[in-house]
Amino acid sequence: MNASDLWPLVLSLRERAPLVQCITNFVAMDVTANVLLAAGASPAMVHATEEVADFVQLGGTLSINMGTPSPDWVEGMMAAVSAAQTRGTSWVLDPVAVGATPYRNAVAAGLLSFDPTVIRGNAGEIMTLAGRTCVTTKGVDSTQTAATARDAAIALAAERRCVVAATGEVDIVTDGRRLIVLGNGHPLMTKVTALGCSLSALIAAFLAVSDDPWAATAAATAYFGVCGELAAEGAAGPASLRIRLIDLLYSLDAAAFDQRLKVMA
Amino acid sequence: MNASDLWPLVLSLRERAPLVQCITNFVAMDVTANVLLAAGASPAMVHATEEVADFVQLGGTLSINMGTPSPDWVEGMMAAVSAAQTRGTSWVLDPVAVGATPYRNAVAAGLLSFDPTVIRGNAGEIMTLAGRTCVTTKGVDSTQTAATARDAAIALAAERRCVVAATGEVDIVTDGRRLIVLGNGHPLMTKVTALGCSLSALIAAFLAVSDDPWAATAAATAYFGVCGELAAEGAAGPASLRIRLIDLLYSLDAAAFDQRLKVMA
Amino acid sequence: MNASDLWPLVLSLRERAPLVQCITNFVAMDVTANVLLAAGASPAMVHATEEVADFVQLGGTLSINMGTPSPDWVEGMMAAVSAAQTRGTSWVLDPVAVGATPYRNAVAAGLLSFDPTVIRGNAGEIMTLAGRTCVTTKGVDSTQTAATARDAAIALAAERRCVVAATGEVDIVTDGRRLIVLGNGHPLMTKVTALGCSLSALIAAFLAVSDDPWAATAAATAYFGVCGELAAEGAAGPASLRIRLIDLLYSLDAAAFDQRLKVMA
Repeated sequence: MNASDLWPLVLSLRERAPLVQCITNFVAMDVTANVLLAAGASPAMVHATEEVADFVQLGGTLSINMGTPSPDWVEGMMAAVSAAQTRGTSWVLDPVAVGATPYRNAVAAGLLSFDPTVIRGNAGEIMTLAGRTCVTTKGVDSTQTAATARDAAIALAAERRCVVAATGEVDIVTDGRRLIVLGNGHPLMTKVTALGCSLSALIAAFLAVSDDPWAATAAATAYFGVCGELAAEGAAGPASLRIRLIDLLYSLDAAAFDQRLKVMA
Repeated sequence: MNASDLWPLVLSLRERAPLVQCITNFVAMDVTANVLLAAGASPAMVHATEEVADFVQLGGTLSINMGTPSPDWVEGMMAAVSAAQTRGTSWVLDPVAVGATPYRNAVAAGLLSFDPTVIRGNAGEIMTLAGRTCVTTKGVDSTQTAATARDAAIALAAERRCVVAATGEVDIVTDGRRLIVLGNGHPLMTKVTALGCSLSALIAAFLAVSDDPWAATAAATAYFGVCGELAAEGAAGPASLRIRLIDLLYSLDAAAFDQRLKVMA
Repeated sequence: MNASDLWPLVLSLRERAPLVQCITNFVAMDVTANVLLAAGASPAMVHATEEVADFVQLGGTLSINMGTPSPDWVEGMMAAVSAAQTRGTSWVLDPVAVGATPYRNAVAAGLLSFDPTVIRGNAGEIMTLAGRTCVTTKGVDSTQTAATARDAAIALAAERRCVVAATGEVDIVTDGRRLIVLGNGHPLMTKVTALGCSLSALIAAFLAVSDDPWAATAAATAYFGVCGELAAEGAAGPASLRIRLIDLLYSLDAAAFDQRLKVMA
């Protein structure tokens, strides 16, 4: 896997503008929609039980983020993933802060039972879903590094027959057999809210332009990491980073992607 | 209609800081409030059935956006527009993605029955409300151009006795008798989420400073288009455009407005 | 109180990254989370009755903002502040637009009964809570100045045995005995949505790094005011101000803080 394998998916996304239905948390709404639009996708935030299944029939991919769950929203999420499973729609699960409360664990378990195509989380979230013990959580921010989650990611991917992305200092993307480790990104990205949430939705966009969910997840993660890293350099702080990241998702060219991409394994 | 007809309304808005009550979608909350504040209005996002009617009594105008509808929010919307109709409060309907699902169509029909002062949508939404067939929708983004919606806009305005704004590549504002076509804006604006939603709320602000809803809608649309066009020029991407747009809504002067305004018909 | 008393709390916040649980309004979600992250805290937006009490047990502080209340969210707020009171968790109440509707007054009264550690509001909100008559409210924006709220703030703090911050043109922070008046900030800050809401959450973050709620509230208010003032200078408009403010919360140094801080009394 190198830049010439991944870049064509970036171009496909820009050309085809696929519909991505998102049920996400209240903090992530704005930045997620803007990330998707900048990268070329057509986002639709639609969460009500009354219409989520109809929206799935429009033929997009689906991104489910449980950052601010409540019973009415979870009902909409369940209706959406049920429709996705029936239709064969690719969908991404972002299990925000799973492990923090029993309620959140129950929500994650319910969603998992509908076979996500991709699970993206930080190291702590992925370790929790993989049943690894001794996970210390501090709210929504993980105290684990992605490197320590490598084994957990592989095990979870194999068990769930899905792609798992454990993102952080390094990003691990695996389908249980294949594995890529990406080294882009920047520590300042952790000071901007909902970038992980936005990446999850971006993965859903890439799923629409590839038949290989592992390659799609790798491409989205690599693209986001390269843009984030370039955005951080020269940023005066976290708010500037966010502006620059979205601008770069729109404007990055193949040469810059190729020059910066760090595939570590 | 030219810049000297429209600019006084921009100044009135800055001077009078009218209250604008918004029930909008979760994606649009932040940018809408900031657009209104920058332009001089005083926004209040208030949606609960328990208090929306009381808020209407405070004397502002009202903006209703159905981008992320659910039954509890729709109940609040209905209570608000009912109070608005009774009190004679001017209000704007933004029928986001009407046509995409039966639920959304039902919500739009319910709201329409309370006689909006202005309806603002993209070409596809306006054609759907006008009962024009063969509308292809792709989630929340329209595949129609505003130019093709011209007849639909006139018919809808005449039928509903309201002002209709069909915005896109060009912006059409009509009350069924009078019509203005505005040519400002920039394609990069379509890569920023909720700008259409924000314009709808800005129209509600302009309704507070004019007795002529058609002129108010034209002024808001022209002002937003000019600022968006100037913001896009020199922007590094969609996130920069948004920042510059909000800054320009605050700082644009009469000379720049006059120089840039494109009234096409 | 001077810069050398307050600055150590800024440093503690950056070093210790305390968890701050927020139940806030839909407009403030994004900017609040970004303000907290930039200043060094670890925000978690969690509102569902099903998990708020469990989240309080994780040991953070709590910020409650009633900007967009509805019965389900208020139920979550009440469960959270009840758990906070039982556990001895410090928490901040932001009584947005109290006085505007009977519903909002009832919500505020319910929350107040659980003994907030700090109440932060604009002058009109503080005067309303203190039972001062003749308050004119215009939606969520106050028509009172903070200076006129000084007596009300002292009375409210004494009655409720809490810290009260009445912020505006000048910022008053009092625990009923001690009082500090801060003169930083900039009028352009009133053109950016949810900055007051963000300050309330930032106060909750500072509560985690001090045993003295009055000093913590003064430090948060001073820090935010200095950053806002510097952000406004050189900003092209309100959107630029917001970007610069968040960047400065991340990067401000002791010398700049010391040079700018205006303690007026």
